[in-house]
Amino acid sequence: MAYSVVVKWLFALLIGIGTALAAVFINISVENFAGWKYSLTFNIIQRSYFAGFLVYMLINLALVLSSVCIITRFAPAAAGSGIPEIKGYLNGIDTPGILLFRTLIGKIFGSIGSVGGGLALGKEGPLVHIGACIASLLGQGGTTKYHLRARWLQIFTSERDRRDLVTCGCAAGVAAAFRAPVGGVLFALEEVTSWWRSQLMWRVFFTSAIVAVVVRTAMGWCKSGKCGHFGYGGFIIWDISGGQEDYSFQELLPMAVIGVIGGLLGALFNQLTYYIAYWRRNHLHKRGNRVKIIEVCIVSVITSVVSFGLPLFKECTPCPEENAISGIECPQRPGMYGNYVNFYCGNKEYNDLATIFFNTQDDAIRNLFSAKTIHEFSALSLLTFLVMFYSLAVVTFGTAVPAGQFVPGIMIGSTYGRLVGMFVVSFYQKLNIEEGTYALLGAASFLGGSMRMTVSLCVIMVEITNNLKLLPLIMLVLLISKAVGDAFNEGLYEEQARLKRIPLLESRPKYQMRNMTAKEACGNHQVVYFPRVVKVVDVLSILKSNYHNGFPVIDHTRSGETLVIGLILRSHLLVLLQSKVDFQHSPLPLNSRDGPVPIRHNLTEFIKPVSSKGISIDDIHLTPDDLEMYIDLAPFLNPSPYIVPEDMSLTKVYNLFRQLGLRHILVVPRASRVVGMITRKDLLIEDNEDTAGVELQSTSVRDHQGDRRLSRRKADTEQPLLDGLLV
Amino acid sequence: MAYSVVVKWLFALLIGIGTALAAVFINISVENFAGWKYSLTFNIIQRSYFAGFLVYMLINLALVLSSVCIITRFAPAAAGSGIPEIKGYLNGIDTPGILLFRTLIGKIFGSIGSVGGGLALGKEGPLVHIGACIASLLGQGGTTKYHLRARWLQIFTSERDRRDLVTCGCAAGVAAAFRAPVGGVLFALEEVTSWWRSQLMWRVFFTSAIVAVVVRTAMGWCKSGKCGHFGYGGFIIWDISGGQEDYSFQELLPMAVIGVIGGLLGALFNQLTYYIAYWRRNHLHKRGNRVKIIEVCIVSVITSVVSFGLPLFKECTPCPEENAISGIECPQRPGMYGNYVNFYCGNKEYNDLATIFFNTQDDAIRNLFSAKTIHEFSALSLLTFLVMFYSLAVVTFGTAVPAGQFVPGIMIGSTYGRLVGMFVVSFYQKLNIEEGTYALLGAASFLGGSMRMTVSLCVIMVEITNNLKLLPLIMLVLLISKAVGDAFNEGLYEEQARLKRIPLLESRPKYQMRNMTAKEACGNHQVVYFPRVVKVVDVLSILKSNYHNGFPVIDHTRSGETLVIGLILRSHLLVLLQSKVDFQHSPLPLNSRDGPVPIRHNLTEFIKPVSSKGISIDDIHLTPDDLEMYIDLAPFLNPSPYIVPEDMSLTKVYNLFRQLGLRHILVVPRASRVVGMITRKDLLIEDNEDTAGVELQSTSVRDHQGDRRLSRRKADTEQPLLDGLLV
Repeated sequence: MAYSVVVKWLFALLIGIGTALAAVFINISVENFAGWKYSLTFNIIQRSYFAGFLVYMLINLALVLSSVCIITRFAPAAAGSGIPEIKGYLNGIDTPGILLFRTLIGKIFGSIGSVGGGLALGKEGPLVHIGACIASLLGQGGTTKYHLRARWLQIFTSERDRRDLVTCGCAAGVAAAFRAPVGGVLFALEEVTSWWRSQLMWRVFFTSAIVAVVVRTAMGWCKSGKCGHFGYGGFIIWDISGGQEDYSFQELLPMAVIGVIGGLLGALFNQLTYYIAYWRRNHLHKRGNRVKIIEVCIVSVITSVVSFGLPLFKECTPCPEENAISGIECPQRPGMYGNYVNFYCGNKEYNDLATIFFNTQDDAIRNLFSAKTIHEFSALSLLTFLVMFYSLAVVTFGTAVPAGQFVPGIMIGSTYGRLVGMFVVSFYQKLNIEEGTYALLGAASFLGGSMRMTVSLCVIMVEITNNLKLLPLIMLVLLISKAVGDAFNEGLYEEQARLKRIPLLESRPKYQMRNMTAKEACGNHQVVYFPRVVKVVDVLSILKSNYHNGFPVIDHTRSGETLVIGLILRSHLLVLLQSKVDFQHSPLPLNSRDGPVPIRHNLTEFIKPVSSKGISIDDIHLTPDDLEMYIDLAPFLNPSPYIVPEDMSLTKVYNLFRQLGLRHILVVPRASRVVGMITRKDLLIEDNEDTAGVELQSTSVRDHQGDRRLSRRKADTEQPLLDGLLV
Repeated sequence: MAYSVVVKWLFALLIGIGTALAAVFINISVENFAGWKYSLTFNIIQRSYFAGFLVYMLINLALVLSSVCIITRFAPAAAGSGIPEIKGYLNGIDTPGILLFRTLIGKIFGSIGSVGGGLALGKEGPLVHIGACIASLLGQGGTTKYHLRARWLQIFTSERDRRDLVTCGCAAGVAAAFRAPVGGVLFALEEVTSWWRSQLMWRVFFTSAIVAVVVRTAMGWCKSGKCGHFGYGGFIIWDISGGQEDYSFQELLPMAVIGVIGGLLGALFNQLTYYIAYWRRNHLHKRGNRVKIIEVCIVSVITSVVSFGLPLFKECTPCPEENAISGIECPQRPGMYGNYVNFYCGNKEYNDLATIFFNTQDDAIRNLFSAKTIHEFSALSLLTFLVMFYSLAVVTFGTAVPAGQFVPGIMIGSTYGRLVGMFVVSFYQKLNIEEGTYALLGAASFLGGSMRMTVSLCVIMVEITNNLKLLPLIMLVLLISKAVGDAFNEGLYEEQARLKRIPLLESRPKYQMRNMTAKEACGNHQVVYFPRVVKVVDVLSILKSNYHNGFPVIDHTRSGETLVIGLILRSHLLVLLQSKVDFQHSPLPLNSRDGPVPIRHNLTEFIKPVSSKGISIDDIHLTPDDLEMYIDLAPFLNPSPYIVPEDMSLTKVYNLFRQLGLRHILVVPRASRVVGMITRKDLLIEDNEDTAGVELQSTSVRDHQGDRRLSRRKADTEQPLLDGLLV
């Protein structure tokens, strides 16, 4: 017991370190590629703008191409953000391929290419997926193909423990992406998990804190200049502690307006991406990988043209007078850290569109958030950028590259936020207002309107801007934008999960379930029974005749009555058929009076590896002799699945199913008598040892205590039989 | 629907404002009493120390006496911290009196007296209780006696909604006590609630943020000097952002030592308080209120003697040389904000023991946490203080005054933390170490070792010290102290709940439940049935013959078989008996063919007011005529309580009971056939309206949709009957 606790904490530590290192690696790579790209381009445009553009476009294309090739050829499951799939996994749906080693590798290198290539997407969603992959692989002891089947890993064979690890990984991903340990915990809690246990919280928090320590250490190391172009940039921390200190009540109206805009644009974003992704899925991507690659290349070229070309058409602005307070130089070279970028401009002039467009996204956001730079941007530039970037983000979403929506969302939101801020500055001239504050609120509002996260988003925004004073304002815009967005559609991840046919079970039952009963929900499906001792050929034919995943097992009492003795899973039957060791010649049940039944299985055999499809019925090859033999199912069935009476309201059934994370519920006729009643005081037993966990997966074979359990289970299944005989 | 959402948010707003105002009121009162007390005492000791002591002691005694009189005469449920009782309420146990209006008033004024009177206790636990009371009273629309039975309040009639409100109140209490909105949310999540729903999180967070805004506004208002002695003090915010910036690896060892000390002292604290409270409960407090009052008075006098007398015996220390960097004056008047207190000392001398002992707790902690004051305290003084204050805290805990353990815990912890810090400073002379940092870690370790909170404590410590950089260190000491403490006993609140006989159901089943079945858990209790139509006299005699709270109802099919048609609650039967409107002369069941059954009840009648004992059977007066009549129970029963087969493992039963928050589970014989099977895809129904909530309280009568529900319920109960007739 103490041992398994130690291993769990060790794994939390390893997940934290692994995810943090992956995040550091991605950030250093992206910053170096981007830095190199911009400095090369800038050197060339000193002579020729066209040559500079060509080089810029080709570098972007090469990076993006590398990304899409990795995805299409090597790790198709690594496309997109991965958050809907992880959410599905934690809800009980194991999408094939999503947590494999190759997905992890594809995600890391694909992210470097797609983000470094300047597409309108971010690396934060992918980092969540990366954290989850690392966690899942650790829990399995390696990749699916080459499992380390060490004894000390077997504590992670229950689905619950694996889910716990993946939850830790998600928190680590957010903590690494935003350097927000508390935000990471809350993200895992609010957005991704379906079952939360307070015991888990401390472990998740520990993982997040480890990430924070490792990332901080790595960045401290990089500050000495050992990481090339990385320097101070990279990790998105936009410290605006030098910004607006206070706010007045008149400002609440424009802030509410930002909230409404965020809700509208966010909901529109969800809707547009849904339609485009639907169309892609059903028309474009069916035509094969070549189409996917061409698509991404076209998007990359368009992005390059827009981000390089549009600033060229923008007139330059003269630099503001030297401001000793702000201390910001003007003009500066493009692609560098800072505002007031000189691009195709004369001396003492800067190009405001290039400041945000021809730049890495992190620097662009830093510029949009910056304080003491009132009137840096013209309204026209911001509007142009908003429209173009919004369109690019919509088009880029759903292409076959790893893509997060956080940073694009912040870009879009901070643009219109700053736009509103500009109007506020000119309306309320007396007040001490910073446009950067409005940009921040705009960012929060767009993310709220699109992703519909609440507390975690609030805390993440506070942690990345390091400004606790804006908390109430961020809450205000989030409240409004989420409410406005909810009036139109679901959140981005839910929409995408629906599109990907990941059947998420929400925590609340649907309204119309009130008027339905359990029996109605079952519909007219024929229930397929197994007898306790069954002929192998019958098993095979029953499994082939339907797609059910669980089968009730019945037995007969001496008086001839039938009795439901449990539930057997298809996957377990397939394992039994494949291993053949339990076949017996006699059609009689195993009897405990003949001595204990020998244990022929290592219980790990019954556990399906994560992200695989498990054994298929076509993999099983049986000889005609085998087919004539029998299996006694009693040792392998779940002796007491949860049951509901047939006329129970579906709302209650749903709660039972969802809260306990079940896979099967048996619907039984109304009972004719009550044996007893269990109340709180019957369950208050003083303990001597407290190890039994909450079993979310009632139907999975557990191998915690190996042999002891198996014999226990047998005893379990024998008991009702004997019981039945006595009645 | 939209309406009920608006009301819920409005209530969250009101809870936030109410709790914040209560906290501000308490803080202003306490600070003013304490400030007045210290300045008066100081003025008198200029002439005579003995007269000063007398005045000091008498003021303390008067304040404490007012507190204990309020508690014993007016609001006995307001004694102690209230957190175990609130935890119990949210776990499903309604301790009588705990959420009444008089408890709220008693708690507020009692806290002012006990904290202002200088006892070794805090006001943070009581603030959680105050928040919960405000929430519960709002949800009920006023006090139990004078309910506002407005229609718009009736959405809070389900126990789940009331619990949600109380959860909001708890978070508001912590947010107000520590000015830590995120910490408040996490406290509610980790420490007090038993069922957490992600929908609730946003609302809880909103409440906390409102508290933060209101408290900040009030403090801003007070800064202008309108609140008397309040000034900058009051709310415990110990900003140590000027302290230690970094830490080296050598420091981890002494920090681990602090963790171990915290675990040991915390566990010892829990054990000692448990024994003393046990003895008090069973011997001392049985003798009536007078003993309680005398006890508190003795404790108050001892506290006054110790806190005034001990510093007198301490030799004074010469002031350190004027330090331009620290900028702290020396010496200062006692009872003021600041270090280096002059107490019975010469010129340019200070008394280090008086600096922490003869001071408000908030200022003492500020002094212990303070940076740039190395060697302010001598080891002997700290040790004396630690021993004396620890003893006082143990003795004070459990007396009949409102008492929180947070601030005393921080006091104790920061003392030994600073002690360790002193040794570290002299050992590692080269490093830039602040004793205040160690004091903070000590405080965290003691709270961790006593209360065993983790994430919420971490976040609270970070929020009150406003120093995010210490997060990993705080986590380290908490990990160690919690682990050490867990080796000895349970957390403080669990121990206290056990002492108060609040049967908390933990989230995990006990280990030995694995080897038990549902039937064994029921024991040999006779199940008492009701027939569907029952004679009033029989109801009365059955209710008097036992203490069961729920009774299965059976009916007969035409073929003569019995059928369990539902569960009826004792409390609902008592309502029926009291109102008499459902009595009928005929022993035949109501029949839906005779037209709809008239609705004679306002469903709020069935809801027990919070913190009351409900109707007693002795309150019911029936005439002999009444006794001869019949009741048809069908419209009032819960038609489909959750059921389990008799040989189900108790672990599974426990999970069902605990996760769904049930009160009764029926144990039924193993089914003979399966009607159907419910899997995930049966529950994926596209919704048009999503209002059905998770029903934690399956057996409570809900009146959401009033009439419609009642008729629905009848249909529900009719159906199985008809079903049975057809078979």
